Amino acid sequence: MLDPVQLLSDYVRFPSVSADPAFREGLAGARQFACGVLEKIGFKVEVIPTGLHPIILAERGGDHAWPHVIIYGHYDVQPPDPLDKWTTPAFDPVIRGRRLYGRGTADNKGPQAVQFGALARVFEENPNLPLRVTFLIEGEEEIGSPSFGDFLKKHRERLREANFVLLSDTGSPNPEQIVITTGLRGLTGLEINLTGPRTDLHSGIHGGALLNPIQALCELCASLHAPDGRVNIPGFYDDVREPAQWERDELAKYPRTLEDYKQFLGVSQFYTAPGYTALEAVRFGPTLDFNGIGGGYQGEGSKTVIPSKAFAKITMRLVPDQKAEVIRELLEKTLRHRCPPGIKMEFSLKEGGSPYAVVPPGHPNTPADQSPVLARAFQSADAAITECFGRKPLYLREGGSVPIIGQIKQQTGLDSLMIGLFTPEDNLHAPDESFSLDILERGVNTYAKLLKGLAAG
Amino acid sequence: MLDPVQLLSDYVRFPSVSADPAFREGLAGARQFACGVLEKIGFKVEVIPTGLHPIILAERGGDHAWPHVIIYGHYDVQPPDPLDKWTTPAFDPVIRGRRLYGRGTADNKGPQAVQFGALARVFEENPNLPLRVTFLIEGEEEIGSPSFGDFLKKHRERLREANFVLLSDTGSPNPEQIVITTGLRGLTGLEINLTGPRTDLHSGIHGGALLNPIQALCELCASLHAPDGRVNIPGFYDDVREPAQWERDELAKYPRTLEDYKQFLGVSQFYTAPGYTALEAVRFGPTLDFNGIGGGYQGEGSKTVIPSKAFAKITMRLVPDQKAEVIRELLEKTLRHRCPPGIKMEFSLKEGGSPYAVVPPGHPNTPADQSPVLARAFQSADAAITECFGRKPLYLREGGSVPIIGQIKQQTGLDSLMIGLFTPEDNLHAPDESFSLDILERGVNTYAKLLKGLAAG
Repeated sequence: MLDPVQLLSDYVRFPSVSADPAFREGLAGARQFACGVLEKIGFKVEVIPTGLHPIILAERGGDHAWPHVIIYGHYDVQPPDPLDKWTTPAFDPVIRGRRLYGRGTADNKGPQAVQFGALARVFEENPNLPLRVTFLIEGEEEIGSPSFGDFLKKHRERLREANFVLLSDTGSPNPEQIVITTGLRGLTGLEINLTGPRTDLHSGIHGGALLNPIQALCELCASLHAPDGRVNIPGFYDDVREPAQWERDELAKYPRTLEDYKQFLGVSQFYTAPGYTALEAVRFGPTLDFNGIGGGYQGEGSKTVIPSKAFAKITMRLVPDQKAEVIRELLEKTLRHRCPPGIKMEFSLKEGGSPYAVVPPGHPNTPADQSPVLARAFQSADAAITECFGRKPLYLREGGSVPIIGQIKQQTGLDSLMIGLFTPEDNLHAPDESFSLDILERGVNTYAKLLKGLAAG
Repeated sequence: MLDPVQLLSDYVRFPSVSADPAFREGLAGARQFACGVLEKIGFKVEVIPTGLHPIILAERGGDHAWPHVIIYGHYDVQPPDPLDKWTTPAFDPVIRGRRLYGRGTADNKGPQAVQFGALARVFEENPNLPLRVTFLIEGEEEIGSPSFGDFLKKHRERLREANFVLLSDTGSPNPEQIVITTGLRGLTGLEINLTGPRTDLHSGIHGGALLNPIQALCELCASLHAPDGRVNIPGFYDDVREPAQWERDELAKYPRTLEDYKQFLGVSQFYTAPGYTALEAVRFGPTLDFNGIGGGYQGEGSKTVIPSKAFAKITMRLVPDQKAEVIRELLEKTLRHRCPPGIKMEFSLKEGGSPYAVVPPGHPNTPADQSPVLARAFQSADAAITECFGRKPLYLREGGSVPIIGQIKQQTGLDSLMIGLFTPEDNLHAPDESFSLDILERGVNTYAKLLKGLAAG
């Protein structure tokens, strides 16, 4: 019998940081470890090379009439920096209270330990369970999944045979209230680079003769929002789908007040586009944000220069049915149109992905042609969560982006069932990352029940 | 007989970089060298301590009825970085062609060698020349003269006895065409620091709920210019004095075309406030420029963060009769008024100074009460330059700022006669700084003639 706590602890010990070439061995170790576990459970394991870190593709086949689920996860983790902020070393997992501490415990090795534990138990109890499972574990999620698109294109026919995707790479508010994530915002953007004079100039000798590229940049950036807070790009809202009433109703049950949220952010007031509360805006509304800006002299004190160059990094979070490529082109076109004469403008583009949303069964806007296997999976998940966590899940879209989910939908047509197993306490991407052992235990029970409920019978 | 070329070469050998504490010895060496030269010429030399680098105050007294000139200069120099861009070492002066190369050769040790050489000759020829001279050589000019204001306050009664100030710390277009600088722009500004959320936030999870401080900064900065290029701060232009017709006429003789200037800047078109050509705007018009901006993620690639903070560095070049303190308060008041709710705004203030202008004798707008000694000095300078350089000087305001000139006027009432001895070829503040030996020679002749013409009798 596989012990999920021990398994997770062993898995976390491999420092599988995808962003840093120094951790190549740690990535290989984590990959081999996951392959070993899957083989032990009974999977046929392949390791698919990519340009960077290989993808694990593991299958438990069976009758083609059986339900077929793809389970997605990633074996890579965020860098552990700043190291001195960790109470105990990042790759030396320890239990304190009812939590296991270490980089990757929550994102995403803990949820995989849940999945491995549940599958081991289910197939041990019933080796002939009528269920096909394909595991897909990538090693580049934390650096934006650069190889995943090519992988999808190459393997789409094979993946398309499945009925849906199951994953736990999203969040819930606390260990009592689980969220089934019904949508993710898309992401696109660009870096804008402006050049004014050929070199930095003395602002006394030349000030007044030419347009300062920082001024041009500020005027361009300022033009991208209307006074009411809406994004001021013609056509930006054309494809925005309003949230359904049931979605607003679900959000109203979310255990956080606007006052709590304001305090958490540390702002004296919200700033949202019209028609959304702050809690709605971050899930249902699109945005345009400036992630960085720079130009000229940034050191201590003063240097009276007119800089030659200035730049800004812009990203937009998109909601259904906005398309990443369309919106990025609108932004580019708008900026080119508004760029003042005398300034040279260049763009470097950012990877991104379109938004994603799925409507669970039983809602007014559930698609009539929804896959019956997906519908059964949602019902089975709802029942399992309600039983194992003691409370019915909430169905909510999330503000963040997992671009591969939209890519999978686009390439294979498959929808995703996303069960949120992180909580804010887990410190994802930060020092002292941890995973709740209660969620680990309840998660294994939930996944086991869900998989059994899903199996053909 | 003092050899100005040898003197300059010896003076430049002391690395008197005021910005860097590592050069303390070089500053002391240059200071002692200058004191030694002045004593040899016959000056009574005092070294006045300041908070940082002492000021040299040297006097050649005489009858109180004699004309009394203060000659200003500075013994400190800019840092020599980047060192690898120098053809020969910065503090190892060498002659190539008709130029002496080394840090400080032009700014400001060359002009001082001119002054020392001329004074030595004049007093050697006529030990009883009826002329009082006070030398004022500071060691903090390249770091904004932080001790000069206090020095002025302490010594104002003594300095006030003089008739005017004479200096060469401004520029001319080439060694044939000397400019007498009739005005300098003032300088003031501030750094604006904005804080939005208490910490950097994930732009997916929280984007849409709050105002991004980079957005707030861009909107504030964009509000500071009107579409026609004028500065959009109420009251900013109230005290701007239009240039006199004779000033525009002088500028029309300046040996540079607008086309040349555009090519020099490397811009496809100018951007000036209405009513000025580009060449006029940099001398006669006030400006507001962004010297630096920063916030959020500035590294390679993308980081989808809503930053907690953003800042911009703003300076304004002022023209007569704008007052530095008044304009800085207008800017502050405007920014506070326009700052959106939910954003915390803080300022750190920059030192600065008010603009300065003097009208030479013989113009429609020459003050009726102009000092006859100053008038004689201008006439004497005009004749000396015309004879020694072969061409009449141009009388022009300059776009840069020498804040101490305005301070001297404010504290002592004294005007300044500024003879431009730099040329663009000199590479001020840059590698391979040099000074023309032709200007050095003609400069000594000019100063000697000017001082003799100025003397009573």
